[in-house]
Amino acid sequence: MIKMVKAGGYANKLGWVNLTEKKIEYREIDENIAYKYIGGRGLGVKLVYDNGPGKDPFSPENILAILVGPLTGTLTPMSSRIVAVTRSPLTGTVTDSHAGGYIGPALKWAGFDGVVLSGKSDQPVYLIAKDGKITIEDASQIWGKDVFTMTSLLKQKHGEVAKVYGIGPAGENLCREANIMHDAGRASGRGGVGAVMGSKKVKALVVIGDEKAISKPANPDKFNEVRERVLKRIIESPVTSPGKGGLSVYGTSVLVNIVNELGAYPTRNAKDTQFEFAFYTSGENLRGTILRETPTCFGCPVHCKRHSEVSDGKYKHKSEGPEYETCWSLGAMIGVGHIEAVSYLNYLCNYYGLDTISVGCTLAMACEATERGLLKDGVRFGDVDGLADMIRKIALREGVGDILAEGTLRAAEKLGDKDLAMTVKSQGIPAYDPRGLRGFIIAYSTSNRGACHLRAYTTSSEILGIPYKTDPLAIEGKVDLVIMLQNLFSVTDSLNVCKFSTFAYKLEDYADLLSSVTGWDINPNELMKIGERIWNLERYYNQLCGFDRKDDKLPRRFYIEPAPSGPAKGWRVDEALFEKIIDEYYEKRGWTKDGKVPEAKLRELGII
Amino acid sequence: MIKMVKAGGYANKLGWVNLTEKKIEYREIDENIAYKYIGGRGLGVKLVYDNGPGKDPFSPENILAILVGPLTGTLTPMSSRIVAVTRSPLTGTVTDSHAGGYIGPALKWAGFDGVVLSGKSDQPVYLIAKDGKITIEDASQIWGKDVFTMTSLLKQKHGEVAKVYGIGPAGENLCREANIMHDAGRASGRGGVGAVMGSKKVKALVVIGDEKAISKPANPDKFNEVRERVLKRIIESPVTSPGKGGLSVYGTSVLVNIVNELGAYPTRNAKDTQFEFAFYTSGENLRGTILRETPTCFGCPVHCKRHSEVSDGKYKHKSEGPEYETCWSLGAMIGVGHIEAVSYLNYLCNYYGLDTISVGCTLAMACEATERGLLKDGVRFGDVDGLADMIRKIALREGVGDILAEGTLRAAEKLGDKDLAMTVKSQGIPAYDPRGLRGFIIAYSTSNRGACHLRAYTTSSEILGIPYKTDPLAIEGKVDLVIMLQNLFSVTDSLNVCKFSTFAYKLEDYADLLSSVTGWDINPNELMKIGERIWNLERYYNQLCGFDRKDDKLPRRFYIEPAPSGPAKGWRVDEALFEKIIDEYYEKRGWTKDGKVPEAKLRELGII
Repeated sequence: MIKMVKAGGYANKLGWVNLTEKKIEYREIDENIAYKYIGGRGLGVKLVYDNGPGKDPFSPENILAILVGPLTGTLTPMSSRIVAVTRSPLTGTVTDSHAGGYIGPALKWAGFDGVVLSGKSDQPVYLIAKDGKITIEDASQIWGKDVFTMTSLLKQKHGEVAKVYGIGPAGENLCREANIMHDAGRASGRGGVGAVMGSKKVKALVVIGDEKAISKPANPDKFNEVRERVLKRIIESPVTSPGKGGLSVYGTSVLVNIVNELGAYPTRNAKDTQFEFAFYTSGENLRGTILRETPTCFGCPVHCKRHSEVSDGKYKHKSEGPEYETCWSLGAMIGVGHIEAVSYLNYLCNYYGLDTISVGCTLAMACEATERGLLKDGVRFGDVDGLADMIRKIALREGVGDILAEGTLRAAEKLGDKDLAMTVKSQGIPAYDPRGLRGFIIAYSTSNRGACHLRAYTTSSEILGIPYKTDPLAIEGKVDLVIMLQNLFSVTDSLNVCKFSTFAYKLEDYADLLSSVTGWDINPNELMKIGERIWNLERYYNQLCGFDRKDDKLPRRFYIEPAPSGPAKGWRVDEALFEKIIDEYYEKRGWTKDGKVPEAKLRELGII
Repeated sequence: MIKMVKAGGYANKLGWVNLTEKKIEYREIDENIAYKYIGGRGLGVKLVYDNGPGKDPFSPENILAILVGPLTGTLTPMSSRIVAVTRSPLTGTVTDSHAGGYIGPALKWAGFDGVVLSGKSDQPVYLIAKDGKITIEDASQIWGKDVFTMTSLLKQKHGEVAKVYGIGPAGENLCREANIMHDAGRASGRGGVGAVMGSKKVKALVVIGDEKAISKPANPDKFNEVRERVLKRIIESPVTSPGKGGLSVYGTSVLVNIVNELGAYPTRNAKDTQFEFAFYTSGENLRGTILRETPTCFGCPVHCKRHSEVSDGKYKHKSEGPEYETCWSLGAMIGVGHIEAVSYLNYLCNYYGLDTISVGCTLAMACEATERGLLKDGVRFGDVDGLADMIRKIALREGVGDILAEGTLRAAEKLGDKDLAMTVKSQGIPAYDPRGLRGFIIAYSTSNRGACHLRAYTTSSEILGIPYKTDPLAIEGKVDLVIMLQNLFSVTDSLNVCKFSTFAYKLEDYADLLSSVTGWDINPNELMKIGERIWNLERYYNQLCGFDRKDDKLPRRFYIEPAPSGPAKGWRVDEALFEKIIDEYYEKRGWTKDGKVPEAKLRELGII
């Protein structure tokens, strides 16, 4: 076994904050655990698992682990990310929610691989991580403040070097779809991690890391060689190429028109699969209208971020985004067909600290419930002002917003028709209709943090042909693709590199980066084994919380309503076919018919 | 007195069709009447007046006069227009409703100054005007057909040379806001003239005129000189210049962004004065998206028309337009913010034969009534599909459409709040909010065919500085401007030249054109006297139908609700100030305090 203290890349320090007792403990990372789970998401699920399953997400017993990985803080391109891991109050599963920007490297430079919040403070506090130390500060002056004000006040106090990772009113009010915002523009969006932070009465984590303290790789020559190789790949990829690739020129919303054309763009709560005004919410239109800047993350030449501004009128605002997912969730999904309005609603979600994807699904559900007469004083598809007001009501739990703040599925159940919720494991779907992009039939249903495009981005294969081309309308052969991607993304999320790196990097690049930074000798096969281990540990944790096959289901609509337009027109997910695919998936995973991870598998992977 | 048979320009023949008895009579035009009222609108009101006031618009006793003027059929640029004059079933006033295109000249070449419909057929018929003769044809095969099909069937039968001027289902069903469509793309829109045609069971007038039979002016040299002069003016005007001027490049909807910026763009039934998505419905955006061609009218180099197409999706269609007024009435006024949707709704109105301005006001009223709970199964601002369906229901008088087919004010009264109707004399307002463009305070209220921008286009002065610049927010001095424009436009509408000619032509041009074509010697002062005569005859006719000062009022909203945004923010029309202006207007018109035309005035103008 490699001694962790000898492995490059790690600070080898986790700050454990007991908020109940206001005590800080500094722990080393067990070398064996680091080798098996890397860091970030993998390390996080291990910590949550070790904390014991079944904790009430809002109880002091639940932990919220904010983590980086071994590549974080090095000059590895696209390695800026931070992750919050906890048991989700939305899904009840373990969840991990990532954000780019600058706070990840800063945390490493401040001397930490992560900060773990446990217990619950009696008064609002915020935390500072600096020079290898964590302090607990009074937050009475910023509690209740919106994300922009909170961020700005903390930066005024601690200087621009301070990176802020905190919550808005939605997190404070335990909205189950609240996020944690980094510097008011980047979101750890999914799974309600902001509500967990709020439940602990923590407004923010402020990180002050020395920008000059770039992490040194264990093997600098090898690292530089790999770094140059991956930079070349980024430049050569038609997706990521700086100033040329789709992501760089149009941002993530370059996908809007493409996915809409494919008839896989869930519209008005997925009643439709194409949006007649998609173009007006696309990256192409964004670029020609409200785009002001194209920011980037630490060390990333792609600049896929957008910074938008509407300079006057009722939707006046400035905000980062909107990203592809938001162009959809606060666009087609709720019948809004103007990028100005989408960006304004995005701004409001950022302001209150709400996950745009989940809230979009909740709003869409509320719109359909209103249409069906299930919700009085509801909200209408396309009614921008009404939708904006509803976002406020959700964040402040005002009136019907108090119901919607419980998240899409819980609210739909309360309104009388759970099938109006476009959710898997209580989490709203992202911007792809599985009737038109069928890899997502498997990816959504088997995702272990609820409906998600980032557990296995099958679209990468179906649209971009990465790592190989498959037919968007095919199902056959997709199980292997999903499993491979689930394992691969478990690795990238644990290395804490941006998922977009997979559009450029090869598997051996990740292995070489990890090896050269840590000094270990990891080959691609071992890396994928780590991915499989992480995936199985997550599944096992969820299983201990009561999840099994019954939870691996799509929203009812996709089984019973044929796609009304586009290439998938007339097609719905046949239930018998679906169950057959799930059988295949479980079998290939080595799980039981019930979708449980058998002890033998846990042992094989060294989980127990 | 000049003998009419000697005056150039006139065919000196009106075809009087008695539909009850299926008899055609051919009448000469009294030379004295031609000299006093010119033709077109002026001649039409004289015919309607002579027919006797107070006739029920839908009764056989009402006449519908379809007329051209002395310049029609000559090579005078911008002289293509045709007009339908009748007592309006919408307003109860005399109304005249114009259209451009090719049918005006064709009617003259077919040997007519006009065709007058009287009586009522027992079976559906259509009329053919050709070679100085009118025939009555069976229309059983085209009755019930939409405007596009009807037009296409008639052209199949009579050849492409046939110009069609007919109605859709809305006219047949006596919708009070039905229009007459020329060749399925140009509308005699206002005042419900299509319903009058429908009440007579006439589906269409087909005109077959020899294209080589260009009308010869009485004084060809003089005419050619004036013609070259006005062509030069058209080319030099920044508004009309072919390929350069605003109208030519962007069409009439070049005004959208300008009027919106001025805070004079009635939005969502005039609850707002600016539309947040105006740009997307503007001529600029139209040009970049759905524009396919820029057609023109006979002999006009401006090409202000648009021909639009949405090539796929739910709003797939091809249609002429949308014009500025429609971009507003089926856009901002009903909360629709995409040119594709506006154009689709425009297409539907063309299909059914409905006036887009009036129907937009009716739909907007219905949307607000729905918001206020006055209308069950109503329709919502911005809900394109619902609005499209409501247009169909209006045309077919289906369900609530049967109420709305009665027109904005009558429907609002029936729904319980007449103040929801943005109407003057029962006719819906056009695309200018009088709080932001204040000449319209006077122009709308004193218009003799209900709310109208074409009786006195004060905006020409307020925005373009034609004939002189005034402040949009000023009221002082506007009475003189309104009176001058009302008289001038009475002339241009009787010459049957396009109103846009006033952006280029001078008053003496009109006098010289009329003189050189007819052989008369008319000077500008005499011309304006004719305009005053026509205006007063219209007023007098209306007065005999019961109209007086009580009817010269704006919609209530403009008196009580301050403009919510834009340059006029916070300003509403003070009632005392309003009455003072009306006093001034009546005084300058030489009318009584009650707004009645005294006998002395009628005698002075030679009306009686």
